[in-house]
Amino acid sequence: MQRVCFLLRVRQDRLEEYRERHRAVWPDMLTALRAAGWRDYSLFLRDDGLLVGYLETDDFDAARAAMEGTEVNARWQAEMAPFFEDLEGRRPDEGLLTLDEVFHLD
Amino acid sequence: MQRVCFLLRVRQDRLEEYRERHRAVWPDMLTALRAAGWRDYSLFLRDDGLLVGYLETDDFDAARAAMEGTEVNARWQAEMAPFFEDLEGRRPDEGLLTLDEVFHLD
Repeated sequence: MQRVCFLLRVRQDRLEEYRERHRAVWPDMLTALRAAGWRDYSLFLRDDGLLVGYLETDDFDAARAAMEGTEVNARWQAEMAPFFEDLEGRRPDEGLLTLDEVFHLD
Repeated sequence: MQRVCFLLRVRQDRLEEYRERHRAVWPDMLTALRAAGWRDYSLFLRDDGLLVGYLETDDFDAARAAMEGTEVNARWQAEMAPFFEDLEGRRPDEGLLTLDEVFHLD
């Protein structure tokens, strides 16, 4: 099992709208994430827009590939892209910067 | 159950030593964390020193208070303090900046 942490940066002027959108993620997006093996997946937001993602999965590369193959993810990521800084043309789920786990206690 | 995410900043010149120390956290520190209700607790480190903590617990205030009452935590935090930036005299476990959870998928 892998524990994954990644960072993104939400635009300061879209923070409240980002929060709202994530209170109502599309049910078919949630279903697709579950089917792709994303578990215990949380997003945490700091006031300055720093976004931390945490999830558990058997194989993160496989879990990402499974989402990339879905039509709902393409639609969701296209809607989310304008909320983020520094994507340089990438979708939010492309090229996620993951951090090294340096400690774990079960 | 609460899911908690917090951030700290490790000094650039101490990153490797910080990693090493966390490959060998004292067994009595691990025992104290478990007894205090810290579960599924991970630390993730970015190359520039940004440290992300994630844990699950029934009550984070109670879990922190329980650790603050232990002698091993006082010793551990005193040894860790020099690894961090911007503590301004606080221990690393004091005044942790926690982030808001804006999304969760079980």
